[in-house]
Amino acid sequence: MSLDSAPPALDGLTLSDAAVPELQFSQRVQIKSILGRPDKGAGLAGQKVRIGGWVKTGREADKGAFAFLEVNDGSCPGNLQVLVKAHVYKLSDVVSTGSCVHLEGLLKSPPEGSKQSIELDVERVIDVGTVDAAKYPLPKTKLTLEFLRDVVHLRPRTNTISAVARIRNALAYATHTFFQKHGFLYVHTPIITTSDCEGAGEMFQVTTLINDAEKFKLGGGGIPKKADGKIDYTDDFFARQAFLTVSGQLQVETYACALSSVYTFGPTFRAENSHTSRHLSEFWMVEPEIAFADIQDDMNCAEAYVKFLCQWLLDNCYDDMEFMTRYDKTALQRLEMVAKSTFHRITYTEAVAILEEAAKVRKFENKVEWGIDLASEHERYLTEERFKSPVIVYNYPKAIKAFYMKVNDDNKTVAAMDVLVPKVGELIGGSQREENHEVLKERILEMGLPIEPYQWYLDLRSYGTVKHSGFGLGFERMILFATGLDNIRDVIPFPRYPGRADL
Amino acid sequence: MSLDSAPPALDGLTLSDAAVPELQFSQRVQIKSILGRPDKGAGLAGQKVRIGGWVKTGREADKGAFAFLEVNDGSCPGNLQVLVKAHVYKLSDVVSTGSCVHLEGLLKSPPEGSKQSIELDVERVIDVGTVDAAKYPLPKTKLTLEFLRDVVHLRPRTNTISAVARIRNALAYATHTFFQKHGFLYVHTPIITTSDCEGAGEMFQVTTLINDAEKFKLGGGGIPKKADGKIDYTDDFFARQAFLTVSGQLQVETYACALSSVYTFGPTFRAENSHTSRHLSEFWMVEPEIAFADIQDDMNCAEAYVKFLCQWLLDNCYDDMEFMTRYDKTALQRLEMVAKSTFHRITYTEAVAILEEAAKVRKFENKVEWGIDLASEHERYLTEERFKSPVIVYNYPKAIKAFYMKVNDDNKTVAAMDVLVPKVGELIGGSQREENHEVLKERILEMGLPIEPYQWYLDLRSYGTVKHSGFGLGFERMILFATGLDNIRDVIPFPRYPGRADL
Repeated sequence: MSLDSAPPALDGLTLSDAAVPELQFSQRVQIKSILGRPDKGAGLAGQKVRIGGWVKTGREADKGAFAFLEVNDGSCPGNLQVLVKAHVYKLSDVVSTGSCVHLEGLLKSPPEGSKQSIELDVERVIDVGTVDAAKYPLPKTKLTLEFLRDVVHLRPRTNTISAVARIRNALAYATHTFFQKHGFLYVHTPIITTSDCEGAGEMFQVTTLINDAEKFKLGGGGIPKKADGKIDYTDDFFARQAFLTVSGQLQVETYACALSSVYTFGPTFRAENSHTSRHLSEFWMVEPEIAFADIQDDMNCAEAYVKFLCQWLLDNCYDDMEFMTRYDKTALQRLEMVAKSTFHRITYTEAVAILEEAAKVRKFENKVEWGIDLASEHERYLTEERFKSPVIVYNYPKAIKAFYMKVNDDNKTVAAMDVLVPKVGELIGGSQREENHEVLKERILEMGLPIEPYQWYLDLRSYGTVKHSGFGLGFERMILFATGLDNIRDVIPFPRYPGRADL
Repeated sequence: MSLDSAPPALDGLTLSDAAVPELQFSQRVQIKSILGRPDKGAGLAGQKVRIGGWVKTGREADKGAFAFLEVNDGSCPGNLQVLVKAHVYKLSDVVSTGSCVHLEGLLKSPPEGSKQSIELDVERVIDVGTVDAAKYPLPKTKLTLEFLRDVVHLRPRTNTISAVARIRNALAYATHTFFQKHGFLYVHTPIITTSDCEGAGEMFQVTTLINDAEKFKLGGGGIPKKADGKIDYTDDFFARQAFLTVSGQLQVETYACALSSVYTFGPTFRAENSHTSRHLSEFWMVEPEIAFADIQDDMNCAEAYVKFLCQWLLDNCYDDMEFMTRYDKTALQRLEMVAKSTFHRITYTEAVAILEEAAKVRKFENKVEWGIDLASEHERYLTEERFKSPVIVYNYPKAIKAFYMKVNDDNKTVAAMDVLVPKVGELIGGSQREENHEVLKERILEMGLPIEPYQWYLDLRSYGTVKHSGFGLGFERMILFATGLDNIRDVIPFPRYPGRADL
């Protein structure tokens, strides 16, 4: 065993001219670094490489003299065609769908008229992970996305879920790249929290009381109680009631009020008993927060960010996006349209007027009038039918929005904004934050919330208060928007919803 | 209010030649884009800019004719010197430490002999957030890190915590950049889990039972129970007992066994009742997982990653690292040493022999013999005294390691490895994973664990199994290593530990 720490040189192959990165720490090269080249690997004929992956399809040919395998390693949607001769390895062990192969061989040009740009002629089989075709849960036949939700540990091996994984990865890295490029600092806001952002309830509790109760067989049903019958959290892990966060916004504001341009990107949670295709109990949110920024700056940032994401996918994930058009013919067009468009900006009051006008000639399920929260059908009408482009609606009625939003001079509206896009409706919600201590305190009381838990939040307005704004983008919504898929459970690796938390 | 969505042009200033990014969505420029230039902003004299920040120190001069302010906006450690004349604004409102100022003015060269490279002559004060100096919790006097832990919402305004925030941000982005560059896909593993990675207990429970019990006043103390007295989770949110994850490793393996090179970077949790300076209840972990990789490849990857992080800080955070040498004189040197060094690789057996030899001439608190888990003092002896460089120890005794680690041919050791670095000891722990179905199943049973919850994990070894390896880096440990700080509660924005979960 070599103790030399220098990364081993690629065996006979330097892919430094490749369009995509290579693995420096092993002798394997990713299939993307072959097929992802502008020439689709054609120029690599004659090179010796080591690759690994799973067999998508395999068939013996020429009366068992050799086998053709289509091998995928997840680095790109394309499969590498691999030729294994019978004297090199037992063909029946490698042709089954789902077999894992680790191979070394020579890249060579395929025969004239072949669909392939390059193929691998195997010289050595390093390792094989066989599969019992009769038992493999993912046969070659087309499987429904619904079926795949019951095998979350194997579904990334399918074309669709692996394409979604690459798109999700690209959007995450694009998010960091965008904010870093603009001088934002990434802040890890807490997952376990003792603040309730929306004052809304519907939070998961985080506790060690139940475990301890089982362990120590405490009396009274196990959970300690106070004299008034309520649960006594003195002995809980944090000595008080603790929850899973519903948003990092309030906490990240403390960093915005010090470092001026910050963002958080992390998991958030809702204990809502929703069984829809649009809700998850655990999902990821991107939440930038900008000091010295008003609602207009906020909209500028949101628009630039969404366009950047769309352009990034076109530049870095075109193959995968092309694949997604099998589910939604307009997926690619939608990205191109948004990347190039100017987002229409209308006030809530203007939006309601437009919808009232529209309601005269078409039917909405929900009645439109000033003061309502726009329903999904309204949002989609505005972006898909009326403007045929993304729309930002701003200045919403105070009564339907959260306490922390900046009250406008009219005292009827707040400086809130929603970005609406085709396919999913609301993609982003944001606002300028109330920076006036007295107004904010009044709003908290008005909402029937207690002051004490928000004292730290009020402090930000006592000591060097600053005009600031921010927004939240539901990361899975963005993936639904990009991929055109319908069910949010298919765009997160491990979906959590009522009754289900597999693995 | 302009509805034009194009980002407003910078007022009189294009900083496109600046070394650092500018904000495209507002008229404010970051102080970093002035002071972060190679000429420290000197070449910008005559430009009109808008900046915002908090006053670090302020003083009136020339009998109240004007005031000098040192303004910081968190984009860099440096303060911009700002000159406000009495006729422009009421000086007493802006000179207090902690005041927030949003200003427009002309950059100009300071008088001959000044320490500044550039200063801002204010023409217009856009906004001020005043501070009552008598009440401000962060006066100019030096505050202890311990004191600051009680004001987590304000501490990012201090030099130390803001430097840590920038270093943390840089390390996070460096992490993504490193793995993306090498073709790894970022996978979001679940936070709420029904699997227990280590089989170790000490997990937080996630539940809605307690809330529901309070709401519906269920009998028997509130929590439903089964006939045997144990808690009945049928009515809990996920219809079974659910926890906060202690590691994303097992779940990310499902993606490695499909997409070959993946990583996760997210929060993890331990409900340990530890009150040390090295433990948190909520912390972040980076966990790459590589298919077709053995323990040597794993070590290659870990070494390349750690060196990359160190070099990244030297290239992108030099100012902040220089500041940290106030806490630890060797902080910069340590980064330089690690970035350039070759990590020593020794087997556990060799490490024990070295330690036994050392024990003849120096004292260890913990006895050294083959079979023990190395204590922190042993790890630090190896890296700080014996090798004076990072050390990777591999092939640990099977009995002290987790069930999923690859059993070596000697049947006594497993292909596990730990990366030890000066200052913190163990920075990374990893292993080749057991890919043999039968051996893995035996190991699960040997550890006294039930098979059923690991069936999905075993499935990965039934269907196209693959040799694979991975590791985990404790993100806060890396920040302690880089900054030289002693307490882990100071390197995460919102520390959670027994009895405390502020905000």
